[in-house]
Amino acid sequence: MLELIRNGDRRLLAKAISRIENGSPDAVDLLKQAFPLTGHACVIGITGSPGAGKSSLVDRLTEHVRRRGHTVAVVAVDPSSPFTGGAILGDRVRMQRHATDPGAFIRSMATRGNMGGLSATTADVVLLLDAAGFDFILVETVGVGQDEVDIVKTARICVVVLVPGMGDDIQAIKAGIMEIGDIFVINKSDRDGVIKTEQEIRAILAMNTRADGWEPPVVKTVAIRDEGIDSLFAAIADLRQQQASGRDPGRFALPAAREKLLQLSRDRVFQEFLRRTGFEEQLDALAQKVLDKSADPYSIIDTFLSKFGR
Amino acid sequence: MLELIRNGDRRLLAKAISRIENGSPDAVDLLKQAFPLTGHACVIGITGSPGAGKSSLVDRLTEHVRRRGHTVAVVAVDPSSPFTGGAILGDRVRMQRHATDPGAFIRSMATRGNMGGLSATTADVVLLLDAAGFDFILVETVGVGQDEVDIVKTARICVVVLVPGMGDDIQAIKAGIMEIGDIFVINKSDRDGVIKTEQEIRAILAMNTRADGWEPPVVKTVAIRDEGIDSLFAAIADLRQQQASGRDPGRFALPAAREKLLQLSRDRVFQEFLRRTGFEEQLDALAQKVLDKSADPYSIIDTFLSKFGR
Repeated sequence: MLELIRNGDRRLLAKAISRIENGSPDAVDLLKQAFPLTGHACVIGITGSPGAGKSSLVDRLTEHVRRRGHTVAVVAVDPSSPFTGGAILGDRVRMQRHATDPGAFIRSMATRGNMGGLSATTADVVLLLDAAGFDFILVETVGVGQDEVDIVKTARICVVVLVPGMGDDIQAIKAGIMEIGDIFVINKSDRDGVIKTEQEIRAILAMNTRADGWEPPVVKTVAIRDEGIDSLFAAIADLRQQQASGRDPGRFALPAAREKLLQLSRDRVFQEFLRRTGFEEQLDALAQKVLDKSADPYSIIDTFLSKFGR
Repeated sequence: MLELIRNGDRRLLAKAISRIENGSPDAVDLLKQAFPLTGHACVIGITGSPGAGKSSLVDRLTEHVRRRGHTVAVVAVDPSSPFTGGAILGDRVRMQRHATDPGAFIRSMATRGNMGGLSATTADVVLLLDAAGFDFILVETVGVGQDEVDIVKTARICVVVLVPGMGDDIQAIKAGIMEIGDIFVINKSDRDGVIKTEQEIRAILAMNTRADGWEPPVVKTVAIRDEGIDSLFAAIADLRQQQASGRDPGRFALPAAREKLLQLSRDRVFQEFLRRTGFEEQLDALAQKVLDKSADPYSIIDTFLSKFGR
C-alpha cells in the first residue's frame, strides 16, 4: 500500500488518511512502516486569527510552490461540525483549481466528536504525507487557540498570519502565537495601519532572543492579489537553509519532535484508556451520577484508572 | 481548609487554586471534598475572537452582577507565556477596581508548559469556586480554538462574543463556536455592519434546531460604554430559568457534565501515564531517537503503554 502511495496513487492516499482519522488498527502499522521514509518534506504550519486570510495565503503559496516544480500537500485543520459544514465546502471550492493537479493534494481535517485528538491525528497525517514524498506540506489551522498552536508547533517552520489594525492588537498577541512564529506575515497589507502593526510585532520580537539565533522576519502580503508571496517563499527558503546547515541542526528539530511525541502519546494513551476500560460507553451513566451527586468525578476516574493501570 | 474558603478566606482560596494548577497530590482530595458542595453557582463560559472585547464585557458583567448583590468569580484562561506576560498584566490592571471588593474574585490561568491540561485544570478550579459559594462564575477564554471551545463547553451557559464586520465572517463561524453558543453577543455594536452580522448569525442559527428547544438570543452591546449589559444579564436569567424548570432539566446539564468528565479523565490519565512510566523525563532522549530514526514514535509509545497498563 505504502509503495503505491509513494508512486502517486492519490485515491489510496486519501483512503489511508481516512483510516488514520477513523483510528483503524491497521493505521498504526502503516505509520510505523512510513516512519523511516520521512524527513524529506518541508513541513510548514500556518496559523493566525480568523479573518486574517490564511486560506487565500495558503492557496497562493501552493501555486507558487507548484510553479517552482515542487509537489505540495495541504492539510486544513478545521474544527467545523456537520452543522457548519458549509464553511469547509467554501474552502474546497476555493482550492478546486488544484484538484486536477497531480502534484498538489488538499485535505480538510475536522474534529472527531468529543474524544479530541485532532492534533495527534494531524501529526499522523503529516507523517504519512512526508513518507508519500511531497516536497512541501502546509498545515493550516482555522482557529487560533491552544490546540491550534499545539498543531502548528509540530511543524518545522511556523508562519503566523496577522492583519493591519486588528483592533485590540494586544489580544492577538495574547493568544500565545507570538513565540511560536518563525516567520510573521502581515496579510491584507494594503490596508491602513500596516506600519503600526509591523512596529508592534517587531517590538514584541525584540523582547525575546531565540536560543537558535534565528530572527523572525516580517513579510507583507496581499494574498488575494498575489503580492508578497515570493518574499514569503524566500523567507521560508532562508530558514530552511539555516535549519539544514550550521553546527547544530538538531536545535531546530528537537522542539518539534518533542511536541509530536507528546501529542501522539497523549492521544494514544487516552484512546487506550477508553478502549480498555469501557469509560466511553458508560459516559452518559457516569455523567448522570455526577449530576445527581451520587459520585464525584475524581473518584469515578480513580476507579477507571485502577482498571487501566496496575 | 474548605470551611475557611467557604467562609470567605480569599487568600486561602488563591492558595488552593495554585495547588490545583501545580497538580499537588492533596488538590484531588480537596476537590473530592468540595464536590458535594457544588451546584449552586451559575457558570458562564465566554468565548469569541481575539479583539471582540471579551475582557471589557466580562468586566462590565462583573459590575452588573455585583450591583445586584451577587458574588462573582472570574477565571480568565490565558495561554500567554512569561514572554508575553505583559498582556496578562493589562487584564489585571483593568480588573483592578474589583480587587478590593470581597464579593468579587479574579484569577488568570495560563498554560503550564507542554503537558497541556488547561481545560481540566479550569474545570477543577470552577468546581472549587462553585463549592466556595460564588453565585456567578465567569470563565473567559482569550483565544478561540478547539481547546477554548472545550473549556467553554463545560459551562452550563455559553456566551459567544462577535463584532460587526469581522471581515471574513464565515471564518469566525468556522471556528466551531456557533453550535456551542447559548447566547450571542454582538459587541462594539455601534460600529457599521451590525445588521448584517446579526442576519448572518440568525441565518446560521436557523439551520439548527436544538434538542433542548432553546432559541439562542442575539444581544447587542457596547461594553466600553456599558450599553446592553442589562439585556445580556436578562438573557442569562431567561436561560437559567428554563434550565431550572420544565420536565427535564437534565437535558441541559448532561452535555456539560459529560464534557467535564472527559476532560478531567483525559488529563488525569495522561498525568498518571507520565508519572508512572517516566515518559516525561526521557522525552528529550526519545525525541532525539525519533530524529535520528533509530526508533519510530509509535513503537516508542507502545513500549511505554505496556509499562503503564497490564
